[in-house]
Amino acid sequence: MQRRQKQIQPTDLKMRAIGAVVREFRESAGHSQERLSDECGFDRTYISRVERGIINPTVGRLWKIADALETPFSQLAKRMELWIADQLRPSRRGETKRT
Amino acid sequence: MQRRQKQIQPTDLKMRAIGAVVREFRESAGHSQERLSDECGFDRTYISRVERGIINPTVGRLWKIADALETPFSQLAKRMELWIADQLRPSRRGETKRT
Repeated sequence: MQRRQKQIQPTDLKMRAIGAVVREFRESAGHSQERLSDECGFDRTYISRVERGIINPTVGRLWKIADALETPFSQLAKRMELWIADQLRPSRRGETKRT
Repeated sequence: MQRRQKQIQPTDLKMRAIGAVVREFRESAGHSQERLSDECGFDRTYISRVERGIINPTVGRLWKIADALETPFSQLAKRMELWIADQLRPSRRGETKRT
């Protein structure tokens, strides 16, 4: 029984947001997935799996990625929220179809 | 071999920041730890363990907590950064001693 409706987005959309934003910031920084994994002390395939949205990283690990990319963790989080909002915009598909 | 110095904070400080900030927002919302755990669909002791800094939650779970507290995830992240900055301020202890 739910008291009220809340805007809870499914975990898979969040994981896709995490992946898209990590990729975006990593590419802006000019790092390869392997170099970023190494810098963070993770398994070499870790960043690749995060970017594909098949891993739900711990906050500690995502924060470490943000540190390695010299980006505040909150900026990554903000960008993830914007990414989701953009995915959910009803006009988005319509706009795409029009082109 | 490190190319340059980066501001990477230890995971335990981050976990303490997560815990302190979850507690702060949960108390502001007037929720008990058990109620918040229930609302998120977590084990009843989960929030208690996060708040004590003994769990490094996944991003998905922390985001779900933010949703349940009707707070943007990025706002939680920002508050966590400020909490750490406050812990690291050199003047902090001196000020406390003076009172």
